[in-house]
Amino acid sequence: MIQKRFGLAIKKLREETGLSQEKFALSIGMDRTYYASVEAGKRNISLQNIYKIAEGFNLTISALFVTVEGMEV
Amino acid sequence: MIQKRFGLAIKKLREETGLSQEKFALSIGMDRTYYASVEAGKRNISLQNIYKIAEGFNLTISALFVTVEGMEV
Repeated sequence: MIQKRFGLAIKKLREETGLSQEKFALSIGMDRTYYASVEAGKRNISLQNIYKIAEGFNLTISALFVTVEGMEV
Repeated sequence: MIQKRFGLAIKKLREETGLSQEKFALSIGMDRTYYASVEAGKRNISLQNIYKIAEGFNLTISALFVTVEGMEV
């Protein structure tokens, strides 16, 4: 399901940056517990927050979703 | 801003299908007035609803956002 794939993708991308959930969430101005629940696939995240996360990885949203769509669930 | 670009992109894609807002919204099981407000750039739409709209156009979300990112606002 799309929320799970999204969560797995951003976990992978974050781990590639070497940042903890807490540090990455802080870097994009997002609440740490909210960010953790998105990584866990538990949130039906909004477009504005998807945009914030993509920016945090220096990716366009389309590029972020190429990774999302490549995840196995 | 991302909501405006998203709205313009789905309006363009819908017009290419030849469907009215009402018929397209009906085809994806979305409320017509909600769909209209998304096209108008007024909604911070959720991932599940982005997915529904992409499916309605037979596009992946990444392909949908290539169009979104190409819109001028």
